[in-house]
Amino acid sequence: MRLTFECLAVNGAARRGRVQARHGSFETPAFMPVGTYGTVKAMTPEELVGIGAEIILGNTFHLMLRPGEQLIAELGGLHGFMHWSRPILTDSGGFQVFSLAKMRKITEEGVRFRSPVDGSEVHLTPERSMRVQRALGSDIAMAFDDCTAWPATHAEAEASMLRSMRWARRCRDAYYGEDSSDAAETPGDLFGIVQGGMYADLRQRSLEALLELDLPGLAVGGLAVGEPEPERLAVLDALMPQMPQDRPRYLMGVGRPEDIVRAVQRGIDMFDCVMPTRHARNGHLFTSTGVINIRNARHQRDPSPIDPACDCYTCRHYSRAYLRHLDRCNEILGARLNTIHNLYFYLDLMRQLREAIAEGRLDAFAADFFARRAAVEPVA
Amino acid sequence: MRLTFECLAVNGAARRGRVQARHGSFETPAFMPVGTYGTVKAMTPEELVGIGAEIILGNTFHLMLRPGEQLIAELGGLHGFMHWSRPILTDSGGFQVFSLAKMRKITEEGVRFRSPVDGSEVHLTPERSMRVQRALGSDIAMAFDDCTAWPATHAEAEASMLRSMRWARRCRDAYYGEDSSDAAETPGDLFGIVQGGMYADLRQRSLEALLELDLPGLAVGGLAVGEPEPERLAVLDALMPQMPQDRPRYLMGVGRPEDIVRAVQRGIDMFDCVMPTRHARNGHLFTSTGVINIRNARHQRDPSPIDPACDCYTCRHYSRAYLRHLDRCNEILGARLNTIHNLYFYLDLMRQLREAIAEGRLDAFAADFFARRAAVEPVA
Repeated sequence: MRLTFECLAVNGAARRGRVQARHGSFETPAFMPVGTYGTVKAMTPEELVGIGAEIILGNTFHLMLRPGEQLIAELGGLHGFMHWSRPILTDSGGFQVFSLAKMRKITEEGVRFRSPVDGSEVHLTPERSMRVQRALGSDIAMAFDDCTAWPATHAEAEASMLRSMRWARRCRDAYYGEDSSDAAETPGDLFGIVQGGMYADLRQRSLEALLELDLPGLAVGGLAVGEPEPERLAVLDALMPQMPQDRPRYLMGVGRPEDIVRAVQRGIDMFDCVMPTRHARNGHLFTSTGVINIRNARHQRDPSPIDPACDCYTCRHYSRAYLRHLDRCNEILGARLNTIHNLYFYLDLMRQLREAIAEGRLDAFAADFFARRAAVEPVA
Repeated sequence: MRLTFECLAVNGAARRGRVQARHGSFETPAFMPVGTYGTVKAMTPEELVGIGAEIILGNTFHLMLRPGEQLIAELGGLHGFMHWSRPILTDSGGFQVFSLAKMRKITEEGVRFRSPVDGSEVHLTPERSMRVQRALGSDIAMAFDDCTAWPATHAEAEASMLRSMRWARRCRDAYYGEDSSDAAETPGDLFGIVQGGMYADLRQRSLEALLELDLPGLAVGGLAVGEPEPERLAVLDALMPQMPQDRPRYLMGVGRPEDIVRAVQRGIDMFDCVMPTRHARNGHLFTSTGVINIRNARHQRDPSPIDPACDCYTCRHYSRAYLRHLDRCNEILGARLNTIHNLYFYLDLMRQLREAIAEGRLDAFAADFFARRAAVEPVA
């Protein structure tokens, strides 16, 4: 089947929708918790469902290196391996090659690099990325692209974007083509990724190149790589009105709650970010008025929950004093309770955004959202 | 109220019973998961209840140092602090002073040592231990004792035991006496601890000294400190027939599943041990045929659960291959799933023991239990 996107309501540029994928549907705008190594860190699948996650993300780069896609395919694909029965999106590995791999060498064929796990040489190409994602059995696969660094000159960004577009075509051919390897699952749906750095003309040309491939969804890549927020928003402001209305739009790797609100206002439907899970393990907790650091001494004897306005399991049963104690003792339960809270915060924000769009009051919601976020305790 | 012990059935020396404590009842023989720092590592209270835990243990030594009993008292006692509403037993700190403290100096008054957390000097006396346990608000407090080292001569064991008996009297007076400190909860129940090393005559004298104090429960201490198993069993064989029938008997810090079966056969009602939780985090998993090490390469592609005979959440949903992968990636979920399994194994063993006693077939159960435990893969 080909993934479908149903638009249920619009409010300005924002959309309230539903995506039907191979393993079920999910409501948009959607946030996808990141499950790097076949687990959303510290969470069971049942806990994820319980706080409203409908789709999660798996990292092709990490899973290919450990435990390897063949092993996962043998054990029922990523769904069976990790006991998750709802949709999964896998990234292509392109961004991790860009951010994590050592001794990286990029050619037209693909990228050679040293595995950060064991130092062995790895060759990742568009075709290899598609084979891995087929083996993982994800619902949504992402095209393997060349992630443009920031800053980049127009010429650098253009060359990188054009390579990504050539690779996108190879990805489509490989992903939907016959694959006779034992590990290959039937394909799910492949999303293309718009590149072009901070240049509106390159973004436009990238979009046009992808539209020729007729893929069921489109992502915006190459953002959240260090650029100032106004540049990121300028890219979205120029690009989003050109994006097709009939398929989901995914902003990769973004971001803070406020980034998500601004991107939803511009028409983005899907998000992923490690921030809620990683911040949780570092004691940075999201609240309706900003981020708190649970390690701060002022929480030592505080009987109140992280956020009195929050209905999550953690806030219903545990004090800041207890969470601070668990963090200081490096207790696993601390990482768990913090993760539950932070993911709940993100998923609840998405619910509120969907409701606001459906009721035609997104701008009012956003104004209120930003007004409440006093800088209580900025994250260092 | 004073804790009560109701004996529901006997089978040889073994008893099937029920203890009614301040925060509720628990069935015996009982295993108490260890919650050192106000959390049974990696588990929520709801998960503990879900696998059948009815009482847990908290460590006075650790909690006194971090976060401190005053803070816990302010936050609702240990029950409120950690969101556990059923019975809690706290140890006295005596064993940890013996096993963890540095620069330990024992006098008749108590023990001075350096905190392993921050190096500060700590003075722990019978009275201080009682004050801390009152502040924690546990259901069952343990007398502060001098844990006799192994090996010890008869004279050393006697001197140590006699000190423990003098301290036991001070503990009773302090625990049940008026305490005007802000942190003091009304007292729960204090258990005495029989000491005396490996010497039957000293154990007998220790028991007689404790019986004079008329405490609602008695423990056997100073075992599982390195002595050979035959010596431990000889102590129990001599002591247990002398123990009063009308109150619970607790074997402290024991032990392996096979140790628990043998002690239940000799009339022990309560157990605690860090083994299931600590082993879980090290990848050592209990099965009906022995212990497996999930880190072993032979589990790499194994789609089967830890134990096909086990009904725990982990065994119902996850393969050995997945658990091995999580362990290799140092994923929190791995520690969680392993802990769920190991604690379930212990708690399920207790259920089986209770059933076997009630049905008068404990010896047959034990014979079958030992026959099944081939040394599949000994823990190094």
